[in-house]
Amino acid sequence: MSDDRKSSKRPRHPGYFNRSKDKSDGPAARHFGSRKPTERQADQLWIYGIHAVAAVLANPRRNVLRLLATQNAAARLKEEGSTLPPTVEETAPRDLDRLLGADAVHQGVAVEVAPLDPLPLDALGDAKLIVVLDQVTDPHNVGAILRSAVAFGAEAIVVTGRHAPAETGVLAKAASGALESILVVEVPNLARALDELGDMGFTRIGLDSEGSTVLEGAMGGDRIALVLGAEGKGLRRLSREKCDVVARLDMPGPIKSLNVSNAAVLSLYLARRHLGPPSAA
Amino acid sequence: MSDDRKSSKRPRHPGYFNRSKDKSDGPAARHFGSRKPTERQADQLWIYGIHAVAAVLANPRRNVLRLLATQNAAARLKEEGSTLPPTVEETAPRDLDRLLGADAVHQGVAVEVAPLDPLPLDALGDAKLIVVLDQVTDPHNVGAILRSAVAFGAEAIVVTGRHAPAETGVLAKAASGALESILVVEVPNLARALDELGDMGFTRIGLDSEGSTVLEGAMGGDRIALVLGAEGKGLRRLSREKCDVVARLDMPGPIKSLNVSNAAVLSLYLARRHLGPPSAA
Repeated sequence: MSDDRKSSKRPRHPGYFNRSKDKSDGPAARHFGSRKPTERQADQLWIYGIHAVAAVLANPRRNVLRLLATQNAAARLKEEGSTLPPTVEETAPRDLDRLLGADAVHQGVAVEVAPLDPLPLDALGDAKLIVVLDQVTDPHNVGAILRSAVAFGAEAIVVTGRHAPAETGVLAKAASGALESILVVEVPNLARALDELGDMGFTRIGLDSEGSTVLEGAMGGDRIALVLGAEGKGLRRLSREKCDVVARLDMPGPIKSLNVSNAAVLSLYLARRHLGPPSAA
Repeated sequence: MSDDRKSSKRPRHPGYFNRSKDKSDGPAARHFGSRKPTERQADQLWIYGIHAVAAVLANPRRNVLRLLATQNAAARLKEEGSTLPPTVEETAPRDLDRLLGADAVHQGVAVEVAPLDPLPLDALGDAKLIVVLDQVTDPHNVGAILRSAVAFGAEAIVVTGRHAPAETGVLAKAASGALESILVVEVPNLARALDELGDMGFTRIGLDSEGSTVLEGAMGGDRIALVLGAEGKGLRRLSREKCDVVARLDMPGPIKSLNVSNAAVLSLYLARRHLGPPSAA
């Protein structure tokens, strides 16, 4: 695990983190041999759906424990360029329904994995656009935020250890493969992390419906950290104080605040417009 | 119900539909006396949380069957300007937990209501910005879309009868009161409705990650209908063909499609920028 952290310090492909490394988590880790299970990390999880599973298979950081697929789904994964492990277990849609619950849109495929190890702040490397979550935990929201963050070329998401969203199947499905393409950084103390992000040259932009600046005018610098608070509670006082600017979205309708993932995608869009296209190097 | 439909033809306050009318749904309707229950509309539902309940109480179209509130929540509703019915039932947080499930963020208040009657297309009046859902049914997504639509001053959402999202507590909570401030129009056939919207002067903009035009460049005219397809499936062929333009969002990252509510809020933002502020009249 410590190797893992060191080797992530300077990601070579922003937006495609950790795709070509991490030989340290070998067969031992595959069976949790090298893990210190915590409450959040103790359990394997099922990730399902064609896109999400294809992304898992393409991610060398992932330890695949089992892969269940229908014949059709296995064929579709291969068509989309996935390399299937030799141990694919052929399955029927109804068995997946039973395993994952009737509501799961599994598209005939599910993979059992260990959660990814979170990374420390210095793994950010030269990331230009990141999202910082202040106690946002709802898996639908966090999943959608991850997906939008990857879509707009953000390189990392920063969460706090105690209030990090649990990596669950719901979150992984909502993230639609994004978990495999973004760096998840976990910090013990968000206020201190925001200080450090400032030292690293990030413009820290907090979002709050009572913010002093309009979001469009708040974008600045060449590294941006978008700081989002939880639904209802918003940013905590200390988090707000550590931001360079607290910005609001001006909305002309009778409702003045958005769902947090909707606020996130708008700020990602505006930040990307300010920063220009992500660099390929 | 037919009175209801007629009187909505020309909403006087875009963005605040149906706030000062509809005396037709009187005490009889309150007990479903005048309703034709369908599978989707047969049941009452609980709406909870301070904002959502305040919006329900401010909406004359809503038939409030019961209102349960803690002393604190009742006080907070009054502070926010709500007029409470004389029949408020004082309750304890734990009783609401039991009623609504442990995950429900009820903030000490819940109201039991009948679902709103959907309206026909001619209820759109002179609406300038509307959202059309092509079989989007996930309640988290539909709720977030409603909320963002109201925030950006959209006047209506158009859904199809057979695949309309069920008005559930989850949806109402995600909508955060938006259900009370937007016109929900239900049409039997979406392709025909899109034809009619064209006749009414709407620029029909479909969203699709393979669209021919960049979304920023697709905005046009002085009435805009944003047409969104379901997660995964996207727009149906016929829906796409009925649009004036099928537009894509250019995203620089490895993921090329957004969660549907995230796509909705970006298109609402861009449409509102094109149209300018909603008129007050």
